[in-house]
Amino acid sequence: MQNIQSYIQEHKDRFLNELIELLKIPSISADSAYKKDVIKTAEVVMDSLKKAGCDTVELCETDGYPIIYGEKIIDKNLPTVLVYGHYDVQPPDPINLWDSPPFEPVIKATEAHPEGAIFARGACDDKGQMYMHVKALEFMTTQNQLPCNVKFMIEGEEEVGSVNLAKYVKENQEKLSNDVILISDTGMIAKDVPSITTGLRGLSYVEVEVTGPNRDLHSGLYGGAVANPINVLTKMIASLQDENNHITIPGFYDNVEELSKEERAQMAKAPFSLENYKKALDIDAVYGEAGYTTNERNSIRPTLDVNGIWGGYTGEGAKTVIASKAYAKISMRLVPNQDWETITALFKKHFESIAPKGVKVKVNPHHGGQGYVTPIDSIGYEAASKAYEDTFGKTPIPQRSGGSIPIVSLFEKELKSKTILMGFGLDSDAIHSPNEHFGIWNYLKGIETIPGFYKHFTQLFK
Amino acid sequence: MQNIQSYIQEHKDRFLNELIELLKIPSISADSAYKKDVIKTAEVVMDSLKKAGCDTVELCETDGYPIIYGEKIIDKNLPTVLVYGHYDVQPPDPINLWDSPPFEPVIKATEAHPEGAIFARGACDDKGQMYMHVKALEFMTTQNQLPCNVKFMIEGEEEVGSVNLAKYVKENQEKLSNDVILISDTGMIAKDVPSITTGLRGLSYVEVEVTGPNRDLHSGLYGGAVANPINVLTKMIASLQDENNHITIPGFYDNVEELSKEERAQMAKAPFSLENYKKALDIDAVYGEAGYTTNERNSIRPTLDVNGIWGGYTGEGAKTVIASKAYAKISMRLVPNQDWETITALFKKHFESIAPKGVKVKVNPHHGGQGYVTPIDSIGYEAASKAYEDTFGKTPIPQRSGGSIPIVSLFEKELKSKTILMGFGLDSDAIHSPNEHFGIWNYLKGIETIPGFYKHFTQLFK
Repeated sequence: MQNIQSYIQEHKDRFLNELIELLKIPSISADSAYKKDVIKTAEVVMDSLKKAGCDTVELCETDGYPIIYGEKIIDKNLPTVLVYGHYDVQPPDPINLWDSPPFEPVIKATEAHPEGAIFARGACDDKGQMYMHVKALEFMTTQNQLPCNVKFMIEGEEEVGSVNLAKYVKENQEKLSNDVILISDTGMIAKDVPSITTGLRGLSYVEVEVTGPNRDLHSGLYGGAVANPINVLTKMIASLQDENNHITIPGFYDNVEELSKEERAQMAKAPFSLENYKKALDIDAVYGEAGYTTNERNSIRPTLDVNGIWGGYTGEGAKTVIASKAYAKISMRLVPNQDWETITALFKKHFESIAPKGVKVKVNPHHGGQGYVTPIDSIGYEAASKAYEDTFGKTPIPQRSGGSIPIVSLFEKELKSKTILMGFGLDSDAIHSPNEHFGIWNYLKGIETIPGFYKHFTQLFK
Repeated sequence: MQNIQSYIQEHKDRFLNELIELLKIPSISADSAYKKDVIKTAEVVMDSLKKAGCDTVELCETDGYPIIYGEKIIDKNLPTVLVYGHYDVQPPDPINLWDSPPFEPVIKATEAHPEGAIFARGACDDKGQMYMHVKALEFMTTQNQLPCNVKFMIEGEEEVGSVNLAKYVKENQEKLSNDVILISDTGMIAKDVPSITTGLRGLSYVEVEVTGPNRDLHSGLYGGAVANPINVLTKMIASLQDENNHITIPGFYDNVEELSKEERAQMAKAPFSLENYKKALDIDAVYGEAGYTTNERNSIRPTLDVNGIWGGYTGEGAKTVIASKAYAKISMRLVPNQDWETITALFKKHFESIAPKGVKVKVNPHHGGQGYVTPIDSIGYEAASKAYEDTFGKTPIPQRSGGSIPIVSLFEKELKSKTILMGFGLDSDAIHSPNEHFGIWNYLKGIETIPGFYKHFTQLFK
């Protein structure tokens, strides 16, 4: 019976190569052109769970992409850990900004990852972090060190809102019953500063369309006399935030949780260098809601960001045209207690209300999800904390993340169990960006740390 | 010796077919991918001038696309008419909104053109209108009815700013010397309301780039904490016009010519139905600068229109990203006395000055040109007016156009002669838009009317 360190030493090359193969498949759920690849990825994940020792593995069809379910039940009287992850990835564009093709993984050293990092879309979010759990399971089953029951639920629509997973969870509460949910789809503060994510922001994602004249017009013959949908769209979007970067949608802040002085003081203790932050992004100043620090703005405060905008002539050279239509994709990050469907409705009502005469406005809600906060006094959190102590030699810091995993709050609602977010990525890993990567050290450290969670959770569970 | 009407009757099918062949070549000067086609078009135009009876025809190389020069000098003591036109066309996009391919001309009847119109990019702007002059010349030379000297100068860069034509004109003043310049690159009020364009707006066209972080970022991890270049760009553009749609750039209105009550009253007499205007564009209200009518807003007042905007994720589905860069193409239509280079400099200075900390802004001037006003008491105007009276049976109305032909004011400066704008297109011909077309009736009416201008101008020229 090997210990985890020596097992990793012996198998790390294979662990890397298996992940690289997984990363070669462009499982872009947002773009239907990649449908075959997304489904192929599901099959590879299913196969990997079988090999890792699950007794039962199923490819569960949905109205969208399949959910891979696997389980190994060793004793009904022992606790059950449900592992969640996703095998789909964000679109890679802008493709021209990648130093190497997004689906041809390469290993390169970086400042944060001198031991090398795997560069590929999905390396960190979430194929790499999801696969740590598969390899940890392989270790526990082959080395006879699985202390409790385990269930895996790996979906292919996380990047597009997990609509079908939500249905699946509601319809399979018995099958998915568990004592704790374990997810690695977040980050840690630094390699020498382990952290556990205790909060996630919610999300409301909408697409807006502004229509002016029924056809593109010559900007000389009509310019100045008709509403230009692009000019109008810029005015409408600009008006959504005031000079203090407060969001102006009526009712938007009604349920926003205000943290106490003490809580904010606690947060402020997390190691953070504004200078390094600005340097890493090559910006000369940060920008955001008045009255809050950078770490508050991106974690405990809601936001409104335009994720994409387009209209008119965007090709080479000049075209003197007034476009018939202009579009934008807008997302709002929400904090606990803000209901995403309420916020989406408030946005729609407000945005339609501010449209000037002479244009027609459509608001199409895309998807969303609730925010989430996990308590730090649960045995799940304690088990995770001890697991980090074993492998990092220090107690992890609880940290609110600005990101969203919309499905987490639904898990709690439907499955009545808490989620523990053990993330091993770094902010600098560029998830959702060109040149996304995942440190090899982080990948192996995750595989090393996860079995400890199972051990401590089982011991604490009485 | 045939008269023009019977000559058109005999040759109109050939006149149509020759234009259709010319329209099949995608001479898009803004897009370098079409370079070969633009040059091929120049050669076809050169050949058509030879066939139409020019004694000398030259393809004049420039740093860009060639200028076709042709002349027929019958007597140094007679006046000389210089015809200007362009063989390049606007890009056809958005291509999906065309009912038939933009470079596969088809003839269809429309409400305004029951006799049929030719649908193709460039049909009206300007291949069709330019070619009327070639066919009018053919008539005058073959039927021995050319009363004076004629020079043709047809360029291939009008849609991208005529930069090389400007050089060419400055360097060839002697060769281009003339007594009047004749252009058909504008419109007329209606088929039963002939009009002569007496004013054109100037143009300043710029492209702006806003850069935030040095890479695309995850909108969850960074949202709210860094300047989002798209949100910032919308705020910057929105601020360029106030609630009355006055342009806020300091100094922008300094030299704007204010028309007298009388002049505005004169303008107001031109036949115009706001209801039909709104109906044709399917808008429930017009939109523009407070205190001015629709016909004033699009002719005697300057404008600021976004012609294109893009940034972030614009594909299918959702991507939660903060883009590193956002872009816009912005054009300003200027009125007489506004110097386009001064306005461009004012825009650049102002736009850079309103950029918030946390972003970098670039303003790249594209091209521009001065506005133009032609007097209605010149013999050129009188000759044109009589020509219309002969063929339309009524006196044409002088009309300010909102469009720009930047080169016209340069002609006056360098060649010391006035330009007469005899346009035969209709506003509904959708120039610069999908489904651009040119009425067959208008095309033939132009060919019929133009020789009259030569006759009357020569008679009035003493």
